[in-house]
Amino acid sequence: MPGTTADTQSAAYTPTDRTVPTRSAERASYDKELVHAILDEGYVCHLGFVRDGAPVVLPTLYGRVGERLYLHGSTGSRPLRMAGAPDPGLAVCVTVTHVDGLVLARSAFHHSINYRSVVVHGVAHEVTDPEERRLALDTLVDHVVPGRAADSRPANKKELAATAVIRLDLEEVSAKVRTGGANDDPEDLALPHWAGVVPLRKGYEAPVPNADLTSGIEVPDYLTGR
Amino acid sequence: MPGTTADTQSAAYTPTDRTVPTRSAERASYDKELVHAILDEGYVCHLGFVRDGAPVVLPTLYGRVGERLYLHGSTGSRPLRMAGAPDPGLAVCVTVTHVDGLVLARSAFHHSINYRSVVVHGVAHEVTDPEERRLALDTLVDHVVPGRAADSRPANKKELAATAVIRLDLEEVSAKVRTGGANDDPEDLALPHWAGVVPLRKGYEAPVPNADLTSGIEVPDYLTGR
Repeated sequence: MPGTTADTQSAAYTPTDRTVPTRSAERASYDKELVHAILDEGYVCHLGFVRDGAPVVLPTLYGRVGERLYLHGSTGSRPLRMAGAPDPGLAVCVTVTHVDGLVLARSAFHHSINYRSVVVHGVAHEVTDPEERRLALDTLVDHVVPGRAADSRPANKKELAATAVIRLDLEEVSAKVRTGGANDDPEDLALPHWAGVVPLRKGYEAPVPNADLTSGIEVPDYLTGR
Repeated sequence: MPGTTADTQSAAYTPTDRTVPTRSAERASYDKELVHAILDEGYVCHLGFVRDGAPVVLPTLYGRVGERLYLHGSTGSRPLRMAGAPDPGLAVCVTVTHVDGLVLARSAFHHSINYRSVVVHGVAHEVTDPEERRLALDTLVDHVVPGRAADSRPANKKELAATAVIRLDLEEVSAKVRTGGANDDPEDLALPHWAGVVPLRKGYEAPVPNADLTSGIEVPDYLTGR
């Protein structure tokens, strides 16, 4: 039943020292449903790891299955090599950000951005189980274009051998959300500057067929509906 | 004159061990003009730093002046505190990514994303010179909405005291760009799957005035033109 202690706990991630912000704490959330929704709306994350003591941040694709994030890449790529054997894996921070609007206040100081972000801290491990690797790779394709994994040629043996998959469990996770208009100080409200929000345009343009596409193959339903 | 050694050198960043990718090297570029264009098209970066040995990646605003990136935040925020006195600053990686399109190949393996990204490695330092701080803050506002800094109330003494500015020089920098359609293997071209690119929609929706906006203040020209 909703409202019981057990349910309340399972519906939220437990805050930690790393996931409690030092400021704008009112924007932070540990709600699993919110975190999942933000993750599922995107497909490009920024993967952070430490190499020779210095931070590295790379954009890469991801997919989610329940409380697991999957990332993949060439077996030759640095972070994927570092996450592989010998375990204990690779300490990572995975961040997903959606920018929703520009917030223009009368004061320069209160200018802001409406956004939704998720930050995941943890240790990523290489996935070696063949079944889980298949699931992860299908998920990565379907995360970008739902329905696409079933409508493409699955990876063959050689491609599978060239692809590393890593998993990051969703345990130490927080979301941060800013919505709404500009929050100017009361004494600035009468200033002659426009204030409000400029929403970002979202979505996709019409699909552009490949030059070498076999004639007669129509744009699939899962693309026309976007 | 174009084509001289000196000009060629000054037009590109010098590759380093960190900025030469282990794969897809053909997508990498060190061209300053390209790097600047990618940076100037965005305003949200992902800032990576190391805290207690682990990576942290946070979305934040940035602005560029020549070969300098400026970031700002509350004086209480962790990375800005860490970049401040006592110097030697904070080792960071700043990454800016624009997603341009989804690339659907016949094979799951060759699915991809068209994107342009810039990765900057370096040590960020707190900016304490009042003139440079003003320049940086104006730049941060104008980077999101060109022309806006002059049409808003500048930061007052109290706001300036609450704001930390850090600078990261553009020295160890690379761009990575993927464009074009799907690159399937020759033996997959006859498969019955659609292949091509789904471009992302870009731009902004109509500005939404604040509920408390003084009546009679029109949407400024620098917004209607976007």
